[in-house]
Amino acid sequence: MIEVTLSDIVAQLGGEMAGDPALRLDRIGPPAEATPSTISFIASPRYRSQVAGTAAGCLIVPPDLRDAAVARGNGSAATIVTPDAYLYFARLTQWWAARGRPARVAGVHASAVVDAQAQVHAGASVGALAVVEAGARVGDGAEIGAHCHVGRNASIGAATRLAARVTVGEGCSIGERCIVHSGAVIGADGFGFAPAQGRWEKIEQLGSVRIGDDVEIGANTCIDRGALDDTVLEDGVKLDNLIQVGHNVRIGRHTAIAGCTGIAGSTTIGANCMIGGAVNILGHITICDRVTVSGTTFVSSSITEPGHYSGSFPFDENAVAQKNTATLRNLYELRNRVRALEKKNG
Amino acid sequence: MIEVTLSDIVAQLGGEMAGDPALRLDRIGPPAEATPSTISFIASPRYRSQVAGTAAGCLIVPPDLRDAAVARGNGSAATIVTPDAYLYFARLTQWWAARGRPARVAGVHASAVVDAQAQVHAGASVGALAVVEAGARVGDGAEIGAHCHVGRNASIGAATRLAARVTVGEGCSIGERCIVHSGAVIGADGFGFAPAQGRWEKIEQLGSVRIGDDVEIGANTCIDRGALDDTVLEDGVKLDNLIQVGHNVRIGRHTAIAGCTGIAGSTTIGANCMIGGAVNILGHITICDRVTVSGTTFVSSSITEPGHYSGSFPFDENAVAQKNTATLRNLYELRNRVRALEKKNG
Amino acid sequence: MIEVTLSDIVAQLGGEMAGDPALRLDRIGPPAEATPSTISFIASPRYRSQVAGTAAGCLIVPPDLRDAAVARGNGSAATIVTPDAYLYFARLTQWWAARGRPARVAGVHASAVVDAQAQVHAGASVGALAVVEAGARVGDGAEIGAHCHVGRNASIGAATRLAARVTVGEGCSIGERCIVHSGAVIGADGFGFAPAQGRWEKIEQLGSVRIGDDVEIGANTCIDRGALDDTVLEDGVKLDNLIQVGHNVRIGRHTAIAGCTGIAGSTTIGANCMIGGAVNILGHITICDRVTVSGTTFVSSSITEPGHYSGSFPFDENAVAQKNTATLRNLYELRNRVRALEKKNG
Repeated sequence: MIEVTLSDIVAQLGGEMAGDPALRLDRIGPPAEATPSTISFIASPRYRSQVAGTAAGCLIVPPDLRDAAVARGNGSAATIVTPDAYLYFARLTQWWAARGRPARVAGVHASAVVDAQAQVHAGASVGALAVVEAGARVGDGAEIGAHCHVGRNASIGAATRLAARVTVGEGCSIGERCIVHSGAVIGADGFGFAPAQGRWEKIEQLGSVRIGDDVEIGANTCIDRGALDDTVLEDGVKLDNLIQVGHNVRIGRHTAIAGCTGIAGSTTIGANCMIGGAVNILGHITICDRVTVSGTTFVSSSITEPGHYSGSFPFDENAVAQKNTATLRNLYELRNRVRALEKKNG
Repeated sequence: MIEVTLSDIVAQLGGEMAGDPALRLDRIGPPAEATPSTISFIASPRYRSQVAGTAAGCLIVPPDLRDAAVARGNGSAATIVTPDAYLYFARLTQWWAARGRPARVAGVHASAVVDAQAQVHAGASVGALAVVEAGARVGDGAEIGAHCHVGRNASIGAATRLAARVTVGEGCSIGERCIVHSGAVIGADGFGFAPAQGRWEKIEQLGSVRIGDDVEIGANTCIDRGALDDTVLEDGVKLDNLIQVGHNVRIGRHTAIAGCTGIAGSTTIGANCMIGGAVNILGHITICDRVTVSGTTFVSSSITEPGHYSGSFPFDENAVAQKNTATLRNLYELRNRVRALEKKNG
Repeated sequence: MIEVTLSDIVAQLGGEMAGDPALRLDRIGPPAEATPSTISFIASPRYRSQVAGTAAGCLIVPPDLRDAAVARGNGSAATIVTPDAYLYFARLTQWWAARGRPARVAGVHASAVVDAQAQVHAGASVGALAVVEAGARVGDGAEIGAHCHVGRNASIGAATRLAARVTVGEGCSIGERCIVHSGAVIGADGFGFAPAQGRWEKIEQLGSVRIGDDVEIGANTCIDRGALDDTVLEDGVKLDNLIQVGHNVRIGRHTAIAGCTGIAGSTTIGANCMIGGAVNILGHITICDRVTVSGTTFVSSSITEPGHYSGSFPFDENAVAQKNTATLRNLYELRNRVRALEKKNG
């Protein structure tokens, strides 16, 4: 269990402190389920009504909520005031997690299989039963989890962490401070075949995957190697679980993509986009910077203007849905009927 | 090959027997493809017409079909009569599979890497090249398959079976008599980031995953750890393959979910629900008990009444589909045209 | 780096050669990004306009483009003329990849765990930390990648390659010259349960998976074993990443299926079909030969005629999409309003 004082937190993360600096906190939690040893945050004056009701021992709030937060309880309630309470909370979780984590031990586990031609930095760690192939490079402070496979000539940047059981294919490179979750497959072959008399002839995928710094990749997500050139994820990209990134896709800086999304080959996505879950994106199109796409949308053509795009089929009680769907099957005909009426009513 | 007699089956699983108790059966199969050594089932009087036509050596039937089943062939055809023939069939498959399975050998494979601080019950088995970290607990009769990874302080209940290559993250717990299939990732980080000047700041995921008893989890399915509190699967939940369960989701008892479904974070699903394949469920909503959702539905808001809900886009020949889709893009305008006509027509 | 001459290529792959046979080429690339040491292809006279503009040292073209291709530069530009330039390109990538690949070394890695009762051909290779169980057979020239798991009595055909970390379940068989990518799970249990008083009783999955020759299976794709009979992929089937193939599905020869597609149990797909990405296919239906399905379509009933089928919900700017969706929720009622108008206008 982690236990810290209010002053420990502020010493580490800054912010203006009110209340008892020696207050002991052992949990980060939502305001509604807080206890006197819980630290919570309320990110916006919109949630002002939650301030008085929470039992949280300490609240992180923006300046607008300072007075309300301090006024709780005896009028000197523990409070941290900071311009961006949500960001402060994020950094608090990082500090908290780091305290709970066992010290990383550099070195190669005795059961790992590291090729003599691989270059593993002395400050890196390689977990149990991992495999690092010839020509691979693992940077300082990198962690290769148990059961990982780092292919021939692949490169893992400094301070990057591969969770247990990650596969990085031949020649693929991952930058610094990345996190890759279990089951991710980086650098499997893209899906490319030429038709040949009713059969398929394989197009060998000769490119690789290049991933920038500060990228996070979710569990069981797949990023295929390029056909001729590389598949590229720029710095700061965040991918959730079970995402498919086809060959020669390019994803711009700081774009975040939620789970179960599929991106077909040779599509380019701009920087600072937010793509919802279960979105599908056609191949060979371009999405510009600063585009938001709602979950389950099928992006079937390029997007050239920043903005928010959607397209989700509504759900309803089954009986209603079936009637609507039946009409939908003949929607074109319904339009023609309206046209005919318009003519008559000319 | 497995070979049993009719009387073996009834001695094991009950039911009323007709026909020759010594009849030898070596296969369970559907009625339409049965042979004289096949045992089949017909679960409902609705399928009465199939009774006479099958070549199955033995039929499992409900009481309503008893006479028809026995009357086959020479008038004393082998038959098992039981109130729920489908359930009987399920139990027969279990008994059949158990006979074909090699005896489980307790103990830790020589190639497994088990930390000295892990507690593996003497009655458990740990497969080749599995890793069990410090503080992990593995219960009596549990089977940890080859290449599995049981993280620090994780807990695997008695008689639970992890197929080959399953990852259970730090601090996650799985109850008793569960089955987890290959490639499943339990306890990867949830997808949480705070925006920070055009970049994303990681919110460390401090919760874990808690899974009840009698749960089954499909291949390559991902269940993320909670952000602050835990992600929870209650007893008897059944998840198919390639499902994404976001952080802080809660799934109620005996709910079954088919493959390729995605559940976004902080959503609560009730008990005894049946969710079809490729369904997507928005985050932060609630679905009550006893809800059925048809495959490919996007559940975009809470469901508060038990029932059957759907929402699937129809398919058609491509030329027809394109015309309908073009109309759909201007559906709002079509409604306005109908309104205008209604006005004119007073 | 690979470097070959024009005459090397033609000696290997055929075709009519024009230009300097000694021209050195070190890259295969698209015409638009070509350099003088790049070999490119232009597959169709439709792209005739690209011929003059490319800087590619050598062009692969069909006979119709021969003159235009040779006329580039000094009038004797390096050119390979062949009836099917795309197929030629595919074969060129194969030859290219083979040159770059290290020689495969037959034999079992010292760290692999191969049961004494497994039959691994002397010409096969088994990678680091792989597990091959009792009764399994691995054919001549087959490659079992690092961390693979070949279950009891499973069979891997000659010259088949399992990339790192592939799971092949008990009794499943894979034909010759197949490629299976990392994370694929072949032979996990199908999703089968009988309801039993508000709980689910497992139906043990007694079938297996049978895969023909020349099949390719993508990363993290799952193919479940059959309930009673087998799940079958016929020769030449190509599956992309993150596909779910339910129990007792049958996929016909040379059918190709793009990523994120889900196929529910007991469905039969014919030969020479092309199924787009993120398609979902209902269970217990039949799709005939030579059917093309557009990406994201939900195939909710059988298809009995060859052809192209689609059904994708359109996307738009969020504000427009929301208005259209609102109308869609009441589409049935809109149809009734049109009917009423038609009556009035008799």
